[in-house]
Amino acid sequence: MLKSLQSDLLHEAESKDLKVIIISAEGPVFSSGHDLKELTDEQSPDYHAEVFQTCSEVMMLIQSHPVPVIAMVNGLATAAGCQLVASCDIAVASDKSSFATPGVNVGLFCSTPAVALGRTVPRKVALEMLFTGEPISAQEALLHGLLSKVVPEDQLEEETVRIAKKIASSSRPVVSLGKATFYKQLPQDLRTAYYLTSQTMVDNVALRDGQEGIKAFLQKRKPIWSQ
Amino acid sequence: MLKSLQSDLLHEAESKDLKVIIISAEGPVFSSGHDLKELTDEQSPDYHAEVFQTCSEVMMLIQSHPVPVIAMVNGLATAAGCQLVASCDIAVASDKSSFATPGVNVGLFCSTPAVALGRTVPRKVALEMLFTGEPISAQEALLHGLLSKVVPEDQLEEETVRIAKKIASSSRPVVSLGKATFYKQLPQDLRTAYYLTSQTMVDNVALRDGQEGIKAFLQKRKPIWSQ
Amino acid sequence: MLKSLQSDLLHEAESKDLKVIIISAEGPVFSSGHDLKELTDEQSPDYHAEVFQTCSEVMMLIQSHPVPVIAMVNGLATAAGCQLVASCDIAVASDKSSFATPGVNVGLFCSTPAVALGRTVPRKVALEMLFTGEPISAQEALLHGLLSKVVPEDQLEEETVRIAKKIASSSRPVVSLGKATFYKQLPQDLRTAYYLTSQTMVDNVALRDGQEGIKAFLQKRKPIWSQ
Repeated sequence: MLKSLQSDLLHEAESKDLKVIIISAEGPVFSSGHDLKELTDEQSPDYHAEVFQTCSEVMMLIQSHPVPVIAMVNGLATAAGCQLVASCDIAVASDKSSFATPGVNVGLFCSTPAVALGRTVPRKVALEMLFTGEPISAQEALLHGLLSKVVPEDQLEEETVRIAKKIASSSRPVVSLGKATFYKQLPQDLRTAYYLTSQTMVDNVALRDGQEGIKAFLQKRKPIWSQ
Repeated sequence: MLKSLQSDLLHEAESKDLKVIIISAEGPVFSSGHDLKELTDEQSPDYHAEVFQTCSEVMMLIQSHPVPVIAMVNGLATAAGCQLVASCDIAVASDKSSFATPGVNVGLFCSTPAVALGRTVPRKVALEMLFTGEPISAQEALLHGLLSKVVPEDQLEEETVRIAKKIASSSRPVVSLGKATFYKQLPQDLRTAYYLTSQTMVDNVALRDGQEGIKAFLQKRKPIWSQ
Repeated sequence: MLKSLQSDLLHEAESKDLKVIIISAEGPVFSSGHDLKELTDEQSPDYHAEVFQTCSEVMMLIQSHPVPVIAMVNGLATAAGCQLVASCDIAVASDKSSFATPGVNVGLFCSTPAVALGRTVPRKVALEMLFTGEPISAQEALLHGLLSKVVPEDQLEEETVRIAKKIASSSRPVVSLGKATFYKQLPQDLRTAYYLTSQTMVDNVALRDGQEGIKAFLQKRKPIWSQ
């Protein structure tokens, strides 16, 4: 499953026709994470290591991907499934969705999901989820920063596609440059972050689509992007 | 008081029977922080340094402690008292509780409380509290990440004990490994954090309680933890 | 405009009579950021670099300034205008205000605003704003940490001035020391942060206004600050 997701994310990643990715699921569960049968001692520690390494690679791929990745969640997202939601750039969920990191209940603390969770919600919220394994509602997830938006179930696809289309109406090189720079500057100290991003702004202004966008604005017309 | 709290936290910290700690108070004040009489110039700067160093050690001990520490707050928590709430892994408060860092009013800016506060609430919330000294309500504290949960006063103990019992029903070695790893990975860059935690997952799977939990799940029975 | 703001911020920055700064605007727009006419290819890349460097200097000056800086927002704050709000220590807004980083719409991703935005709101909120360019309301901005407080329009000035007067009633050296220390410790690891701030507390206790404040408290009288 992880290999398939990785392959799907990489598919046409460099194509200029790809502008945004939506990750969704069928049925009442968005994702419940790892298959515990893969984690018994019938498999070797090397195999276990490969499972978690592949999972981490997929989560980091979402951030390093050239286009925005949106999670569209309708239902339960637990453990690495919750990690997947936390790892996407944007997450839209139906109001019946819920989120949990219940690994502690089966003796396997959600330490890899905690990487993504701990970077999206306040630490007290993350730790209560990790220590108790209990779910939070979509509204709580929104309140605490795990989601970008919550909508009624019958509007989930419409709203997610609306956001995706808005993103797809922008220039791909501009969005890609912006996304890469955002994650690059975030962990830096303020001076380094401004040094990096000031240079990005100058580079962005010099892009064909940067000049096209500014000129279209000044000429009060719609811009025509290169990609 | 700080030495006593430190000693209580360390008491039986390594005992396998200790699974969770609740910090609470009697009366209408959870804690109002340092005793200002200890901070006049009748005491030496060395003594002042020892006071703040001890306080910082207690706050760091909560994070490095092998079991989860829960603050149960019913009333006012100010200055180092607010810092104590912010330093706990989980914090449950009654709806009549409030939180402030009013040191600025007595000419002593809450710079050590700001370490814990600035890591739990958004910086604009932290700075308004620090610059004005004015309290925020329990609901605001929840909204901004200082608390995990707010309940009516008459349910405070029940809800806190419920969370504590849920944690105590899990394996101590698994929870300890998870807690230590959470705080270790949080300040790291993403790749280092995933490298660290992937290794933790492999180690966790190999624990006796890791295998017991997974097998119990697959066999649809309750796990029996070593501790 | 940026040079003028920089000059105004620096004006009497070292005067003991300056205790707090409020940044506000006239008309329905707080600030809509850069003038796009300055960013066409009629200007050189060196000129563009100077524009963004000056902007970054102004934003960093707000944090390094010796007194608290409050944004009082009544209306629309976009791009570098939204960055300015995010960069202030405290931000109070009327309920009709809104906030956006719409650069992507004109082919110029808000990468420098993202530095300040990404440090004040959860990353999923920041990325949705940056990728779609769509505005968030004052209430959403409060919920996510971009604002300290939201009030009805007719109470905006009253509430902002109330906060400013509260700050001005404190000792300037104490507030300055506290502000500088807050931003210094925030990116540090916990042990370093406590080491730094414990030293600050000892220094603060030794300040004339530190001793005056503590003694006034113990003697149940109003403190008289040196500045």
